[in-house]
Amino acid sequence: MTAYSAEQRAWAYLARVAEPPCGPVRSLVEAVGVREAARCVRSRILPPAFDAVGEATRARCESELETSDLDAAARIGARLITPNDDEWPGWALLALARGDTADRGGEPLALWVRGPAKLDAVAESAVALVGSRAATSYGEYVTSSLAAGIASAGHAVISGGAYGIDGVAHRSVLASDGVTAAVLACGIDRDYPAGHAQLLARIASSGVVISEYPPGTTAAKHRFLTRNRLVAALSTGVVVVEAGRRSGAANTAAWARKLGRPLGAVPGPVTSAMSVGCHRMIADGLATLVTSASEVISLVSPDGAGGPNRSPSRSTDTLTPLQKRVHDALPGRGVATVEEVAFSAGVDVGAVRSALAAMDIAGLVETRDGGWKLA
Amino acid sequence: MTAYSAEQRAWAYLARVAEPPCGPVRSLVEAVGVREAARCVRSRILPPAFDAVGEATRARCESELETSDLDAAARIGARLITPNDDEWPGWALLALARGDTADRGGEPLALWVRGPAKLDAVAESAVALVGSRAATSYGEYVTSSLAAGIASAGHAVISGGAYGIDGVAHRSVLASDGVTAAVLACGIDRDYPAGHAQLLARIASSGVVISEYPPGTTAAKHRFLTRNRLVAALSTGVVVVEAGRRSGAANTAAWARKLGRPLGAVPGPVTSAMSVGCHRMIADGLATLVTSASEVISLVSPDGAGGPNRSPSRSTDTLTPLQKRVHDALPGRGVATVEEVAFSAGVDVGAVRSALAAMDIAGLVETRDGGWKLA
Repeated sequence: MTAYSAEQRAWAYLARVAEPPCGPVRSLVEAVGVREAARCVRSRILPPAFDAVGEATRARCESELETSDLDAAARIGARLITPNDDEWPGWALLALARGDTADRGGEPLALWVRGPAKLDAVAESAVALVGSRAATSYGEYVTSSLAAGIASAGHAVISGGAYGIDGVAHRSVLASDGVTAAVLACGIDRDYPAGHAQLLARIASSGVVISEYPPGTTAAKHRFLTRNRLVAALSTGVVVVEAGRRSGAANTAAWARKLGRPLGAVPGPVTSAMSVGCHRMIADGLATLVTSASEVISLVSPDGAGGPNRSPSRSTDTLTPLQKRVHDALPGRGVATVEEVAFSAGVDVGAVRSALAAMDIAGLVETRDGGWKLA
Repeated sequence: MTAYSAEQRAWAYLARVAEPPCGPVRSLVEAVGVREAARCVRSRILPPAFDAVGEATRARCESELETSDLDAAARIGARLITPNDDEWPGWALLALARGDTADRGGEPLALWVRGPAKLDAVAESAVALVGSRAATSYGEYVTSSLAAGIASAGHAVISGGAYGIDGVAHRSVLASDGVTAAVLACGIDRDYPAGHAQLLARIASSGVVISEYPPGTTAAKHRFLTRNRLVAALSTGVVVVEAGRRSGAANTAAWARKLGRPLGAVPGPVTSAMSVGCHRMIADGLATLVTSASEVISLVSPDGAGGPNRSPSRSTDTLTPLQKRVHDALPGRGVATVEEVAFSAGVDVGAVRSALAAMDIAGLVETRDGGWKLA
């Protein structure tokens, strides 16, 4: 349909040749550039030390679907964004590049997106609202109320486009004329779940639908888990509204913790199986109990400013008072555990984790030997 | 009706001459014995340094109601217990004698009790279930379920005999053939609230009804607050089931914290005004979220053994592994804050507080200069 640049075709090719996320392919692109990386993969002649790329792409390296993938996206008004685009939410995704998270997910190579909202702007303010597909009417009511309040305060709401809590969150934001983003576990051109075809189209008409998978990819269990890391990464904080004892939302919650995103959970009746997961997270000290949109907003912007994705400066001048305190508490030499920093800064462990994650992304601190040090 | 000993009459006299709790009267009894203390107060000739006793007893020192108080109690099958009685729950009440709590309450001088249960045994296992008088049907259901589960596990349940959560807790224990205790904010011979006359009689027929006030005393606002400290002190832990934004239960909860008793709170729908207080305590890190009787029992006996009222030994041999760890973490000289001990022991702050409170009562540790030290 359209003429694509060689770069675009190279990105589209590489976005398909390995099951995302694929760290080795990403590293190869960083090492040799996208066009050369595509050439290497296609020719199966890889630079030394990139054997892992060969293994990861063996099954699909002969694919020649890049033009048809770009066409399929264009047909539904979707685009492929890459680290070279202004819209790339590099700041938010940086948390996925840390040593301790890269092995379990890593940054996406590129993202298929559909809708007028800019992904970098969405990620700067988005709150993730997630929860069980088998939501109760209580959960739906609370989700609707939280989503409307969060949207009214000018934050985007991100979720997974699923039935139950996710769907109610998206719908409530749309009804409030807010911005909502759905991250899919299938190709950008698939409607999953099928019953949400119209909802996804509405999200794409004012917000943004996002997928790491090439067009045509079907939803699969491992893709939901991989998708969940993007929901957490592209948010300034995650709130679980309802979750049963075993819920996918718990996986998104775990990613929030791993990525240093504030995690909230909504309590409910102790008689409800759909609140068991939320109560467990709160009782275990993993999530903060939240009951209203304003509490959620305080959670994701504890200092009244933005969340961890906000400020791209490397100087400590832009640190919040809390971050400054945590920064000052890091030892001049050697590393300190989160608990040690918390003790020394007189700040609670959760707040220290958030501050460290934000400063990690800002390049001011780094992890080593299980502890944290000044960068 | 009966012939009372001079000692009994002296206790009954002193239990009436000052509004309880009265630290100075208690100190005088400790200094000169109960009969001499009564003689001093009545004659208004006090030993040096006991001026405070004179002030506290000025209005009532001419009272001659001791025999009629003992008669009134006897008529309803109640008795006056004192620190000289085997049944005196001295161990549990010791937490009230600490410097930082004595000024806000202190130990009771004596207690009027009615019912076959022995107060020392009750206090050894009792869980306090408290909450709003304006309970919702959800709160009533959860209270009933928790109380039955706690009673079935062999713990007594203590509460305030009020409408709402308190009443449901007592009733549920009675229905489970468990032991329940009600602490009144009025005289032992008064039925307050009037609608609970029959309930209080049932509690007194198998458990125990308790009052610090002489017979005939009417309920008054300040007495509810004073009574709340006894509910907390006579328990191994306090659980708030439902509490509005401003609830008397919050006062009992504050006493639990002050006395080192584990504090739990039950979550509920965020749409319920009667769960706001519980959610606030949990979100502020003051209370542990609990959802079932077994979680409550774990909360009050974190090491599988008894709560803080259990072991009267002064040796560290009887410490639980957790208490031992906290004990070992205290500095050889100087004091440490709870946070410092938590850090050093690698144990969470709540558990450290419980352990310190238990060891404080056991005389192994003490507070000084806002910190803790070995005794």
